Amino acid sequence: MKRYLVTFLILAGASLLLPAQRKTINLPDLPGFVTLKCDFHMHTVFSDGNVWPTVRVAEAYRDGLDAIAITDHIEYQPKKDYIPTDHNAAWKIAGNAAREGNIILVHGAEITRDMPPGHLNALFITDANALVKDSVYDAIEAAVKQGAFIHWNHPGWKSQEPDGIPKLYGIHKRLLSNGWIHGIEFFNDSEYYPNILEWCREYKLAVLANSDEHGIISESYPAHRPMNLVFARERTPESLKEALFAGRTLVWFDNTLAGKVEYARPFFYQCISIGKRFYETGKNYYFEITNKSDIPFYLVNGPKGAPSSITIPANASARVVLSKSFSGTLAYDVKNILTGTGEVLNVEIRY
Amino acid sequence: MKRYLVTFLILAGASLLLPAQRKTINLPDLPGFVTLKCDFHMHTVFSDGNVWPTVRVAEAYRDGLDAIAITDHIEYQPKKDYIPTDHNAAWKIAGNAAREGNIILVHGAEITRDMPPGHLNALFITDANALVKDSVYDAIEAAVKQGAFIHWNHPGWKSQEPDGIPKLYGIHKRLLSNGWIHGIEFFNDSEYYPNILEWCREYKLAVLANSDEHGIISESYPAHRPMNLVFARERTPESLKEALFAGRTLVWFDNTLAGKVEYARPFFYQCISIGKRFYETGKNYYFEITNKSDIPFYLVNGPKGAPSSITIPANASARVVLSKSFSGTLAYDVKNILTGTGEVLNVEIRY
Amino acid sequence: MKRYLVTFLILAGASLLLPAQRKTINLPDLPGFVTLKCDFHMHTVFSDGNVWPTVRVAEAYRDGLDAIAITDHIEYQPKKDYIPTDHNAAWKIAGNAAREGNIILVHGAEITRDMPPGHLNALFITDANALVKDSVYDAIEAAVKQGAFIHWNHPGWKSQEPDGIPKLYGIHKRLLSNGWIHGIEFFNDSEYYPNILEWCREYKLAVLANSDEHGIISESYPAHRPMNLVFARERTPESLKEALFAGRTLVWFDNTLAGKVEYARPFFYQCISIGKRFYETGKNYYFEITNKSDIPFYLVNGPKGAPSSITIPANASARVVLSKSFSGTLAYDVKNILTGTGEVLNVEIRY
Amino acid sequence: MKRYLVTFLILAGASLLLPAQRKTINLPDLPGFVTLKCDFHMHTVFSDGNVWPTVRVAEAYRDGLDAIAITDHIEYQPKKDYIPTDHNAAWKIAGNAAREGNIILVHGAEITRDMPPGHLNALFITDANALVKDSVYDAIEAAVKQGAFIHWNHPGWKSQEPDGIPKLYGIHKRLLSNGWIHGIEFFNDSEYYPNILEWCREYKLAVLANSDEHGIISESYPAHRPMNLVFARERTPESLKEALFAGRTLVWFDNTLAGKVEYARPFFYQCISIGKRFYETGKNYYFEITNKSDIPFYLVNGPKGAPSSITIPANASARVVLSKSFSGTLAYDVKNILTGTGEVLNVEIRY
Repeated sequence: MKRYLVTFLILAGASLLLPAQRKTINLPDLPGFVTLKCDFHMHTVFSDGNVWPTVRVAEAYRDGLDAIAITDHIEYQPKKDYIPTDHNAAWKIAGNAAREGNIILVHGAEITRDMPPGHLNALFITDANALVKDSVYDAIEAAVKQGAFIHWNHPGWKSQEPDGIPKLYGIHKRLLSNGWIHGIEFFNDSEYYPNILEWCREYKLAVLANSDEHGIISESYPAHRPMNLVFARERTPESLKEALFAGRTLVWFDNTLAGKVEYARPFFYQCISIGKRFYETGKNYYFEITNKSDIPFYLVNGPKGAPSSITIPANASARVVLSKSFSGTLAYDVKNILTGTGEVLNVEIRY
Repeated sequence: MKRYLVTFLILAGASLLLPAQRKTINLPDLPGFVTLKCDFHMHTVFSDGNVWPTVRVAEAYRDGLDAIAITDHIEYQPKKDYIPTDHNAAWKIAGNAAREGNIILVHGAEITRDMPPGHLNALFITDANALVKDSVYDAIEAAVKQGAFIHWNHPGWKSQEPDGIPKLYGIHKRLLSNGWIHGIEFFNDSEYYPNILEWCREYKLAVLANSDEHGIISESYPAHRPMNLVFARERTPESLKEALFAGRTLVWFDNTLAGKVEYARPFFYQCISIGKRFYETGKNYYFEITNKSDIPFYLVNGPKGAPSSITIPANASARVVLSKSFSGTLAYDVKNILTGTGEVLNVEIRY
Repeated sequence: MKRYLVTFLILAGASLLLPAQRKTINLPDLPGFVTLKCDFHMHTVFSDGNVWPTVRVAEAYRDGLDAIAITDHIEYQPKKDYIPTDHNAAWKIAGNAAREGNIILVHGAEITRDMPPGHLNALFITDANALVKDSVYDAIEAAVKQGAFIHWNHPGWKSQEPDGIPKLYGIHKRLLSNGWIHGIEFFNDSEYYPNILEWCREYKLAVLANSDEHGIISESYPAHRPMNLVFARERTPESLKEALFAGRTLVWFDNTLAGKVEYARPFFYQCISIGKRFYETGKNYYFEITNKSDIPFYLVNGPKGAPSSITIPANASARVVLSKSFSGTLAYDVKNILTGTGEVLNVEIRY
Repeated sequence: MKRYLVTFLILAGASLLLPAQRKTINLPDLPGFVTLKCDFHMHTVFSDGNVWPTVRVAEAYRDGLDAIAITDHIEYQPKKDYIPTDHNAAWKIAGNAAREGNIILVHGAEITRDMPPGHLNALFITDANALVKDSVYDAIEAAVKQGAFIHWNHPGWKSQEPDGIPKLYGIHKRLLSNGWIHGIEFFNDSEYYPNILEWCREYKLAVLANSDEHGIISESYPAHRPMNLVFARERTPESLKEALFAGRTLVWFDNTLAGKVEYARPFFYQCISIGKRFYETGKNYYFEITNKSDIPFYLVNGPKGAPSSITIPANASARVVLSKSFSGTLAYDVKNILTGTGEVLNVEIRY
C-alpha cells in the first residue's frame, strides 16, 4: 500500500501509524485486578529484526495487546553498516504510535551473552545505552540501577543449551541471590521450558511468555503470539511494573496456559460458568459448561461413573450428560493448564 | 464418519445425535428480555429437503441457536415414491435431539401455494396433517385454530413475484384483517425485502429472517444463517411464542440488522460501550468505542468537524480521534441497521 | 436455500441436482493409465446415513471425484419406520445426477455383520435386494454371482476389534481362498490399518480408502476425504472395474499416501520434477524440486553431507542447497508414503 | 521467531534469509515465451517503507514470483535521522537473498515529484544516487542514460489527481515523444486506471501492475498482490528487460486480468480446455470447460439459446448444458479480462 504524501490529505487527527481498529482478546479479569495482555520481547531493524519500530506497536494494537517492550540486542548490531547504533532509537521512534494507540510501551533492551547467563531482558529502563558494558554482570547492574525488571530469556534455547533443558549456573544463582532476576520465560517463540515453573515458585519470579519476534507477527503466529497475562491493579505502567515484580502472571500460547496455581485456579473459574440442569431422562441429567474465554479447556481423568473427559472450546459450551447414579465430586485435570513439571491444574465442576 | 453399532460402546448418557459442544453467539440481551436466536424455516427429506430431521437440530445446536422450526411443505412431496407422507414425521423424529440439546423445537409446517398468497409458515401447531386442505384459506384457518403463529415467507421471491417486490394482494389484506398473519420474512435465504418493514409497523407484525434451508447449513452459510433475534421474557417455548405474537424481534444476516426502531436502538446501545479519553494532543482527543457483539457496525454521515465515518468491527474497538474544536453532537447513521425502506438507525455517541 | 418450484423457471438444460462447477484434484496419471479418484463407501437415509442419495453425487462432483459407490447397509435399517426398505433405492435415485455430472456411479451395498467377518462392501452389483440372506457366506456368494468386487471394510474398527488391529479369521481365509475378497480398506474415516498392506501383497488385493460418510462430507473432511486412486486404462466403469480387480490402486488421506511400492514409486516420480542448478557459491550448489501435485512430500533420512530432510509442499517447490563436496546418491525416505507395516518409500533425487 | 546466533548451528549451505519453499503460481506460458510473474514497485526502510530489503525478496520467493524491483523514493527520506541516505543500499542488501532464491532482482528507484509528472519508476538502473537532480526532467534523463525502463506510477492517484482519472500533461507528452516513458501502471495497490490502456496501445507502452507495498505483503494482499505477467523469451534479466521494452505484458489483480488484446486472447486460450460431450439427453448435450489456471473466468452475454453466463473457477471445471437446437457460435464476453476502457475480451468456445 502506498503512503507517501498521504499526510497532506488526512482529516484532523487521523493517524497513519496505526490501524483504525483493534480486536478484543476475550479473557477475564481476576477479582481486584485487570488482566493486561503483554509481549515484552521483540526486535526491530535496530538490532537483527526486520521491521521498523512502529510496526511492533501497530501489530500489538491490531491484536488487542495492552503493553509491549521492544528489546533490541545491545551486543548484536548486524545492520550497523547501514544504521548507526543508538540503543534508545526504537523506544523514541515507537512512542508516538503507542500513545495514540493506548499501548503501554515499556522501555527495554536485551543483554545478549553466551550461556551462562545467556540472554536477559531489562524492562522499565531509562537509558539503554548505559547497558553497554564489557561484563554481563556490570550490564545487569546498570539496568538494576535504573530500576529495571530483569528476566531470563529462552533459558533452554537449543543454540545455547543443546539438550533444551534450562540449567541454573553459578552466575544465575548469584544474580538470583542479588535479587537481579525477576522473571523467566516459559514460552519463547515455539519453545517452552516446563522446569522453570519450580524456580519461579522457589525464587518468587514472574512466569513469562514472549514472541521474540524478528519478522512479522501475523506470519509467525497466525492464531496468537505467546502472551503474558499480567494481573495488575490498574491499566497503567506503574501497576504493570508492580504486578511483574510481584510475579502476578500467567502465560498463554497455542491453547496452553501455564503459571502458578494461585493464579491459574481462579482464572479458570473466571472463564467458565456452569448452567442449570436443562433436561433429564430416567438415567441421566443434562447440563452445560460455558467457556467465556478465548482459551479452550480440555478436562481429562474424570471420576468413575462420570464422563472421562470434557472439551470446552473457546467461546462455546460443552454439554455434560451425567448419570443419576453418580454421586461423587466432578474433579478433572485440565490438560492444557500447566502448573509445574508434569503438573496440571485440578478443578472441580460444581453442577 | 461411521456410526453403526457405536451405541454399544458409548458410556452412559452420551448422545449420537448431536455434537458435544456448541458455539456462543455473542449478542446482548435487552433489559428485561433474553435474546433468543432462532430459525423458523427449514426443510428435510419429508418434503424437498435433502437431510434427515435430526441434522437440522444438530446444525442449530452446533451454531448456538436457541429455537428452530422444521417446516416441510404440506403440498409439495417430491420424495413420496420413497417416503410415505406424514406431515408430523420430522417433528416426531427431531424431538429427542432437541431435548438433549436444549433446543426449543417449534412444531411447524409450510403452506405452499401460488402467489397470492404464496407460501406461509404455521408455527406452534399441534397437527400438521390437519393443514391438508384444498383451499389455502381453509388451511390457514386450520392452523389458526391450533393457535398457530402464521408468517408470510419470501414475499418477493422472484419465482412468484418476478420484479422481486412484495405486494399486498386482496387475500393478504383479508388475512391481515382476520388477524391471521403475524409476521413476514425480511430475509429469506440470500434475498431481502425492505418494504415489508412498513407493513410490519402498520399491522404490528413480527419482522422475521429464516434460512429456508433445503441442503446443508454450513455449505449455504459459511458465516451464519439468516437469524431471528426474539426478545423473550424467558428462554421457554411459551415466552418465545408470546414474544413472536408481540412482534419483539430484530433480524440479522450477513452483517445487516433490520427491524423496528424501538428494538434496534436499545440493541445497538447494548452492543457498544464508549471508553474514556485516553490521550490528547494540542488538537485532538482520543477515545475508543468497543463493540461487544458479533455484528460489526458501520457509522456514516458524521457531523462536520468530526470523523465522517467510524467502523467498529465485531468483538473489537474503534479508535476515535476527535478535534478539540468540535462541540456538537456525535450523531451517525448506522449504515447496516435498516429500520424502513431507505431508512437506517440514527445513533448518538456520548463520549 | 430454497428450491421449490424452481423447476418451472430454469432455462433449458440446467440441473438442480448438482453444483455448476467442480474443482480439479491435481494428481498425475501413470504412464498408460488415467488416475481415477474414487470413494466407494458412503451411506444415505436408506440405511443409517443422514442425507438423500443425490447429495452424495453432488459432493463428489464438487470435490472433483471420478467415481463413487453408495453402499447402504443391507442388515441395518434404522429408518425403516419412515422409509420402506428398498436396497436399490439409493442407486436408482442417484443415477440421473451421476450421468449429468459425469460421475461413474458404482452400484453397491454393505454386507453388515459381526466380526468375523465384519462388514464387506459389494461393488458393481446388479441387485442389492438379492444380498438379503441369513448367512453372511450366502450374502457374499450372491454378490459374487453378480460379478461383484468385494472389499473388507475397516478391518480394525475398534467397535469390532477393540485393539484396533485387523486379524484374519478363519472365515476371511475361506473367503480369500474362494477368491471372494478383492480388496481391503487401509483408510476408513479417520482410522488406518497398516498391517493390511502385507495381506494385499500376499493375496493380490486392492488397497482401498473410503470415507464411510454418514453425515456431510464437507463437515467431516474440511481438506479432502480418504480417497482411492485407481489406475485405469480409461475413464469408464469397465476400466475402473478391471483396475480394481487387478489391484492397481494407491490410497490418499490427510497428507499420507499408501499402497504397493510398484505404484507408489512411479507415482511419486510423476509428481515431482527436479530443476537445474540455478546458483552456486564456493561451497554449495542450489537447485529446486517442484511438486506438481496436491500431496506434500516429506523426505527424511538424507545421506551424510546432504540436507537431512526436504519438505516439498503441494503445488510448490523446495530449494535444495547441496555441498559441492557431496558426491553420493541423494536417497531419502518419503515419510508420508507408506508401503508396508513400518515401511516407507525410498526414493532417489537425481539432480 | 528468534534468529540470533543461529548461524553457528546451521548445516552447510542453508540460508537464513529465505523460506525453504515457494508456492507455484499456476499460470500458463504463451507459445515461444515464458510467463514471468513480477512486482516492480516496493519500498523499504530506505525510504518510507517499514521493512528491511531482504523481506521483499523473502515475500516474493514464498509467493512464487520470478522478478522484483525495490524502488525506494529518491526525494522522500523520512527515516534519514536514523538511516543515512544511500539510494543503492536496498539493492546491495537484497542481492544475496535474490541469488539464493533464484529471484531476478531489478535495480530500481522511484522518482517522486508532484503531478505533473507525478511518480515514475526507473528500472534496470546502475546507480540510483545519480538520479538525485533538482529537475525531474534531469532525473529521468539520468535514468535513461543508464538504460532504464521508465514507468509512470499510479497515474490517477487521488492524492495527486483528485478525480482519480489519469491525464496526459504536457510534460508526459514531452517524455513520451522523447521515448522516455515505457510503461504505465494499470493496477497500483487497490486502485486501477482503465483509460491508460488506450495510451499503452497508442504509444506502445507496457501495461503494468505493482503492489507499491510499504508494509507487509501478506497483510495487504491475503490472496495475491497486483502482478505483472511478462512474456519473456527466457527467464533471465536480459529477456525480462527486452520483453518489458517490447510491451509484452498482462496484469493480474483480484480476479481481474487486463492488457492488450493480442496477449489477452492467447493467454485465455492457454488457460482453458474444452472437453468432449460426456452425456446427452433428448434435448441437451453436456460438456465441460476446464480452467487450468489460478484465475477464474466469468463468461457473460452468451448467445440466444445457449447459457447466458458460464463461470469457470480457478483450477476447476464448469459443466455446460447446451440445447441440441443451438447451432450458432458460442461467443462470450469475459467479464474479468479488460482490454480497454469499457472493453472486455470476447472469446469463442469451440465445443
